[in-house]
Amino acid sequence: MRKVYLDHNATTPTHPEVVKAMLPYYGKIYGNPSSIHQFGQEARKAIDEAREKVADFIGAIQEEIIFTSGGTEADNFAIKGIAYANEKKGKHIITSSIEHHAVLNPCKYLEKQGFQVTYLPVDKYGLVDPDEVEKAITKETILITIMHANNEIGTIEPIAEIGKIAKEKGICLHTDAVQTVGKIPVNVNKLNIDSLSLSAHKIYGPKGIGGLYVRKGIRIQPLIEGGHHEKNRRAGTENVPAIVGLGKAVEIAKTTLDKESIYLTNLRDGLCSGIGEKIDSVYLNGHPGKRLPNTLNMSFEFVEGESIILNLDMKGIAVSSGSACTSGSLEPSHVLKAMGVEPAIAQGSVRFSLGKDNTEEDIDYVLEVLPEIIVRLRAMSPLYRKQKG
Amino acid sequence: MRKVYLDHNATTPTHPEVVKAMLPYYGKIYGNPSSIHQFGQEARKAIDEAREKVADFIGAIQEEIIFTSGGTEADNFAIKGIAYANEKKGKHIITSSIEHHAVLNPCKYLEKQGFQVTYLPVDKYGLVDPDEVEKAITKETILITIMHANNEIGTIEPIAEIGKIAKEKGICLHTDAVQTVGKIPVNVNKLNIDSLSLSAHKIYGPKGIGGLYVRKGIRIQPLIEGGHHEKNRRAGTENVPAIVGLGKAVEIAKTTLDKESIYLTNLRDGLCSGIGEKIDSVYLNGHPGKRLPNTLNMSFEFVEGESIILNLDMKGIAVSSGSACTSGSLEPSHVLKAMGVEPAIAQGSVRFSLGKDNTEEDIDYVLEVLPEIIVRLRAMSPLYRKQKG
Repeated sequence: MRKVYLDHNATTPTHPEVVKAMLPYYGKIYGNPSSIHQFGQEARKAIDEAREKVADFIGAIQEEIIFTSGGTEADNFAIKGIAYANEKKGKHIITSSIEHHAVLNPCKYLEKQGFQVTYLPVDKYGLVDPDEVEKAITKETILITIMHANNEIGTIEPIAEIGKIAKEKGICLHTDAVQTVGKIPVNVNKLNIDSLSLSAHKIYGPKGIGGLYVRKGIRIQPLIEGGHHEKNRRAGTENVPAIVGLGKAVEIAKTTLDKESIYLTNLRDGLCSGIGEKIDSVYLNGHPGKRLPNTLNMSFEFVEGESIILNLDMKGIAVSSGSACTSGSLEPSHVLKAMGVEPAIAQGSVRFSLGKDNTEEDIDYVLEVLPEIIVRLRAMSPLYRKQKG
Repeated sequence: MRKVYLDHNATTPTHPEVVKAMLPYYGKIYGNPSSIHQFGQEARKAIDEAREKVADFIGAIQEEIIFTSGGTEADNFAIKGIAYANEKKGKHIITSSIEHHAVLNPCKYLEKQGFQVTYLPVDKYGLVDPDEVEKAITKETILITIMHANNEIGTIEPIAEIGKIAKEKGICLHTDAVQTVGKIPVNVNKLNIDSLSLSAHKIYGPKGIGGLYVRKGIRIQPLIEGGHHEKNRRAGTENVPAIVGLGKAVEIAKTTLDKESIYLTNLRDGLCSGIGEKIDSVYLNGHPGKRLPNTLNMSFEFVEGESIILNLDMKGIAVSSGSACTSGSLEPSHVLKAMGVEPAIAQGSVRFSLGKDNTEEDIDYVLEVLPEIIVRLRAMSPLYRKQKG
């Protein structure tokens, strides 16, 4: 059976060049970068080079990059770390209602610790309004944390504008850029941000590695303490092969990003219009234009998203109902809810997230298989029969 | 030049079989284990199998194993997580003065948060006295955290006895077993422990992955929050290849541990007696018998450990002055200090930590090179010339 993977926002296959770059660091250059002997220094050199690549890719300087075990750790570290390090200035945090749980749950945790958190609404496209951010700021505000692009719907937030406001007010701005770094251009200075989370496995790098950019001068308290790693900001023996892999992944992304972006936009828009032509009662979730090039979230009325996913899976097609992290939970998407999507429509949502290896043939296959599935599922829906029959 | 790596307590080369086991999970079985489609479920199956191997290896059950990014995260998670989840019962923690910084620093952090921490002394061998543990317990004590074996000197602590006391008093016992799991037999029930940290890269597994065993029923608060991973205890996309690698590493260790232990003990004791025969004014740091089979920590009087390491490095031999995590800091070892080793002798300490690929020839080479280095360095010491001349 044909296999079509359309769940790249959940994770991506590791690029063969990335695996190739990592391999020597398992069996040959295996030293602990903290060791002063040659074995250690070879490993140290490798992580310094990777750090330079990551810094360069987002317009930062080397010492502003802290390697973490992934995007979730980076978000936890940034939010708790900046909150605790600055709590004497105030205890108010501003975020949005459509953040990833790696942001929302640390915020909820901080609320239990006496912090106040404002969860900003979004419009029907999932956009945060910079004016709303400005209005929410109080004398107590120490941190604004708004995602760069939403993982479920792909909507890209106006971070540069929010960053301008934060900068003027002297408030720290963190952005969860796990879905953007490597997919669209990201420059920490153009975006006016102070802190940014990134992840390797969303952009053909290995799982288990990510990074936190922290602008020089921003105070942050460590989440994981121990040895003097990462300039006393993140303890634990550095994951050398994965760090090298992250470096290689951004090095590749740097050269392929522009072309890939156009390629994926075309492929995705073909899928979108194909679905629109072949299936009735479908809706696009997310902003039509301000959106990640690879992401398409659609709602199929009268059908459960979960049923579509399982039926597509039986045909070898991998898609998702939203965030992989909450799959199987049967909770409706908090993102679609915040956008005001009706529950009946929200529950019929499917996320298609494309990747570099997807082809026109993949899209044709989906457009061949999906309409039949929708017809079959709708035939079992009393509500659909009533309305259409 | 011959290369001899004798710094296995810092890190080990990844076993070729481990790398082989990991490889398919980069480019082929790359799904996100949280995804409900086949790509995800294949990955889920792999981490379940690895979890079973790790659980089985230490006498635990599957759901008691939480994968982390390494030993340091596991220690932070255990100590902060158990402290916060149980703070209503009391705010007193007992630890030892020779713990790794991954334990000491979280303890120091908790002191700032209003917890009381007792740092127990050790004897001249680095042993904690179980009676001292018992005496230190108050009505407020909620956690005892004592390492299983010390990373610098190799001394194995009487954890089973301490565990018996903790169990009788109903107090949670955590042990940092990063240096023991895979090197000596570890069974959580025989040791009477409630929580245990382990790491892959100390036992020929990959860097960036470790585990926390938490006995069923023990309350623990997450350190990293987000998605529903690891039964809501540790968020973040699972590091599938590394988890598979950890599983393979313990699978190998299970079959090789006994033989390797004898092999390394012999090799190490040969190195120890060879040094004793060829060099005067040397001292063994750590317990002569209750010690990790691979670890030898010796002090060379009138010489700086750092100088010995650099000179050995120039001959291709990699050793350490203690913990890799504090290398280059020039602080004297807190472990040797706690054992009452005189500063002048403590600063001449060198840790040789052997591994499975070391040979008799490696040891012969060290015994050929090291005496000359010591003679040369001592010739530059006014104190040595005065005493011996």
